[in-house]
Amino acid sequence: MRNSNDRSGNRRRSLDSLEPVAGNGLIDRRALLGRGVMLAGAMGAGAAGSLTGAAAEPLKDEPWSLEPGQTLPAYQVASRFEKNVVRTLSNPKNEIRTAHARTPHHLLAGTITPNGLHFTICHQGGAPDIDPDKHRLVIHGLVKKPLVFTLDTLARYPMTTRVTFLECGGNSGPMFNNEPVQANVQALHGLVSCAEWTGIKLSTLLEEAGVEPSAKWMIAEGADVSGLSRSVPVKKAMDDAMIALYQNGERLMPGNGYPMRLLLPGYEGNMNVKYLRRIRLTEQPQMSYYETRTYSQILPGGKAYRFYFLQEVKSFITSPSFGHSLKEPGYYDISGIAYSGTGRIAKVMVSADGGKSWAEAALQTPVLPMAFTRFRMPWRWDGGPAVLQSRAWDEAGNVQPTRAEFVAVRGETKKPTTFPFPNQHYNSITSWGVDAKGEIKHVYA
Amino acid sequence: MRNSNDRSGNRRRSLDSLEPVAGNGLIDRRALLGRGVMLAGAMGAGAAGSLTGAAAEPLKDEPWSLEPGQTLPAYQVASRFEKNVVRTLSNPKNEIRTAHARTPHHLLAGTITPNGLHFTICHQGGAPDIDPDKHRLVIHGLVKKPLVFTLDTLARYPMTTRVTFLECGGNSGPMFNNEPVQANVQALHGLVSCAEWTGIKLSTLLEEAGVEPSAKWMIAEGADVSGLSRSVPVKKAMDDAMIALYQNGERLMPGNGYPMRLLLPGYEGNMNVKYLRRIRLTEQPQMSYYETRTYSQILPGGKAYRFYFLQEVKSFITSPSFGHSLKEPGYYDISGIAYSGTGRIAKVMVSADGGKSWAEAALQTPVLPMAFTRFRMPWRWDGGPAVLQSRAWDEAGNVQPTRAEFVAVRGETKKPTTFPFPNQHYNSITSWGVDAKGEIKHVYA
Repeated sequence: MRNSNDRSGNRRRSLDSLEPVAGNGLIDRRALLGRGVMLAGAMGAGAAGSLTGAAAEPLKDEPWSLEPGQTLPAYQVASRFEKNVVRTLSNPKNEIRTAHARTPHHLLAGTITPNGLHFTICHQGGAPDIDPDKHRLVIHGLVKKPLVFTLDTLARYPMTTRVTFLECGGNSGPMFNNEPVQANVQALHGLVSCAEWTGIKLSTLLEEAGVEPSAKWMIAEGADVSGLSRSVPVKKAMDDAMIALYQNGERLMPGNGYPMRLLLPGYEGNMNVKYLRRIRLTEQPQMSYYETRTYSQILPGGKAYRFYFLQEVKSFITSPSFGHSLKEPGYYDISGIAYSGTGRIAKVMVSADGGKSWAEAALQTPVLPMAFTRFRMPWRWDGGPAVLQSRAWDEAGNVQPTRAEFVAVRGETKKPTTFPFPNQHYNSITSWGVDAKGEIKHVYA
Repeated sequence: MRNSNDRSGNRRRSLDSLEPVAGNGLIDRRALLGRGVMLAGAMGAGAAGSLTGAAAEPLKDEPWSLEPGQTLPAYQVASRFEKNVVRTLSNPKNEIRTAHARTPHHLLAGTITPNGLHFTICHQGGAPDIDPDKHRLVIHGLVKKPLVFTLDTLARYPMTTRVTFLECGGNSGPMFNNEPVQANVQALHGLVSCAEWTGIKLSTLLEEAGVEPSAKWMIAEGADVSGLSRSVPVKKAMDDAMIALYQNGERLMPGNGYPMRLLLPGYEGNMNVKYLRRIRLTEQPQMSYYETRTYSQILPGGKAYRFYFLQEVKSFITSPSFGHSLKEPGYYDISGIAYSGTGRIAKVMVSADGGKSWAEAALQTPVLPMAFTRFRMPWRWDGGPAVLQSRAWDEAGNVQPTRAEFVAVRGETKKPTTFPFPNQHYNSITSWGVDAKGEIKHVYA
């Protein structure tokens, strides 16, 4: 189908007529603006059917059109037909070791992660069952007036709301392997999520306690059995840190810190201490077990990054991705997530030919700082091999490194694996290889 | 506590020293900006305790600090201590009549309504249990090429994401009563919610079908047993209408239209047809049962508004509100929700003296069009009677009417109630009366 005029004389463009903007079928993102682009011809035979065609009787009454539905629940949950849209669990028997629950990004859309599917990591088994009336938050150490807060007290303080992603420093760890692990977005990148958080600015509480000038760090400690504690610069605490009480409108989920957690926008997940019960102001960092052993990034020469707080600019394509398959040539909406601990996403480039050529993706507005930004790229798959990639820039000019650039600095893991191995802060490019059957594999390109 | 300097020489202001901006304790919203305002003196005796005071041993280890937690679930739900944060159900036995499930705004914060708590109305019992693989969407009538879509087909079209509120035209219906109904925000205003929706612009599909110039309306029909259908102007359909597939990132909830619904930002809830199976392009509106009987607004003179689509500018205070109580004089964060079907909220004014004086509230950014905007107002309660009100303006200059203005045009209901009575599109001011004990009632002021 080529261009034509409709009856009101408006020129309608078929997708075929749009200039390609990069190799292997990438189409100008302005095609996503909607009006005037006829997708019909571009969708392929399996797309929208004619009512007189094979898809006959589309409106026959199914059972749900003939009888009353199910009782409305007080707290509604997903349809039973969506039972595969769940977190994957690394420790389902709740043994005394770390438990991960990963977000199924390949099955989600938009930018908000629903609370049921927000990722969780607990260090010694599952999530604590905290009675909020008995929970206390203490601020002490190098302060003029040590304070203790109940949840009721905190509820009276001025609140603020912001959308921010949270990412485990170990998210995408499998990408350090020198061979591409055949796994989906959930397994590779499922330890990052994004929510709207509401709580009290930590600076409000620290002002009340009166921080001594000698205090340069604060030690944040959780009430769960792992007793995880992390050192946080006072500068960050006074900048945009929050004591979060609400997650997407409701109280925090048990796996995400109920009844309160520290929120440090852009900093690695474990520093956003869950079940927060103590903040101690100090001159020096604590050098705790978790920050010196677990969360120090080992470099190829044997040295380590200590206090590698920031989650750097990153992106990955969620659809199509590993586990999906393309049933026929034609139009597809390439879509993914980009984010940066530094601020807003400025640009996402997409390639369909493994990085030989690139085109700029459309960014869903509003683009918020340190939040998921959904990017989209129109693509006409011609049925041949393709390698899909995304690469993000943030407003500070940081760019997501190529794999070659990343591995040169940060190393990779070869078999047999020996400890220590690099597994933190992977932020390089993810590549999905599409073969002529439309099957999708994880590749390095 | 008066102003003082901290050790770094910064001037710290106590709340007492801030100028009141309106009667009965309203404080300049700039106090919410955080740094430099000491809340300690203003919070009252029950607020943050000194560590050496009565709240001794705040960090004794509770059971959850001594033993492993609960197994992480594949889909996490709220803590058992939040079991009262649920929707209230008007038809829990699932009788063959309308079922309402209302959002507990008095217990929520931020701007996103979590999917479990999004309001639902179903017209003849509960939510249908639709098999998405068998569901079809048909576009026919005055189009060049009638089309039928499966969910798989729709998934290939370009998607878009937006945050928007949805409100039942009958939300706040009890406010038409000539005596203030003693009920909480959930009972009065619980038929409005706000979510991030992702789906396909309806214009994309209508362009593909080719709308005939004679088509001025479209009839949207759901697949549930009520067979609700509504007439929508083609102009709106081509503007910002969406076929929504995702709600806060995951597939629509069964009570909110799974597997697909029409989304008409700013238009009354029932027009956003759930379980959407058919769109028929027509010259004339359908004058269906629901749109002529249920959703036509009766006016005092016996006439009716027909096709009263827009949800007009509105706001209400969610905290403190009916059902809360203020335990002692001191600082409180007045907080609520504002929204307009016309566009962005421009301004919210708050009064603590029943409308005698007003001060401008802080608006949480980003302020998005046709979405919840959270407003906040710092308030120092002196322990005396107070009447809390909010009043919103939108960017088009529309203002939320006073109750006197509203009732003069739209009527009110006196006992004994006789049908027909006005119960649609209430958008006037809500007033919460605080007495000297800190108890809160619903009042007209």
